Amino acid sequence: MSARLIFAKNLRAFRTQKGFSQEKLAELCNLHRTYVSSVERGERNIAVDNMEKLAIALDVNITELLSDHDNKQS
Amino acid sequence: MSARLIFAKNLRAFRTQKGFSQEKLAELCNLHRTYVSSVERGERNIAVDNMEKLAIALDVNITELLSDHDNKQS
Repeated sequence: MSARLIFAKNLRAFRTQKGFSQEKLAELCNLHRTYVSSVERGERNIAVDNMEKLAIALDVNITELLSDHDNKQS
Repeated sequence: MSARLIFAKNLRAFRTQKGFSQEKLAELCNLHRTYVSSVERGERNIAVDNMEKLAIALDVNITELLSDHDNKQS
């Protein structure tokens, strides 16, 4: 799975784990809900500054958002 | 230190560890040498697809390029 899709999947997982809606998360990051939604679908080639904003809002390390949790050896 | 600057620092460290010039690394990734150079200076808000290309060329996991190796608890 590409890094982009791993990020997308983890973003959704951590967001729902936190109980945040896409709208809530977007608001916390000063991003648009539709942007968060498209990142979660892997449609956006998200850049590091926005990755960091999302990680901070979710209170996780940015590396957690890029870890392939289904395939830990990779 | 911001995620962008952590990436910049790690990119340079892993590249020099591999013995690659910026030009060599850029060539392996189909990127421009000046782009790699500006990423290493933290001037570019690099996106996930290019981060992954660089990680593959350096034979490291993308998470290694974002880990704060000086401050492991973070």
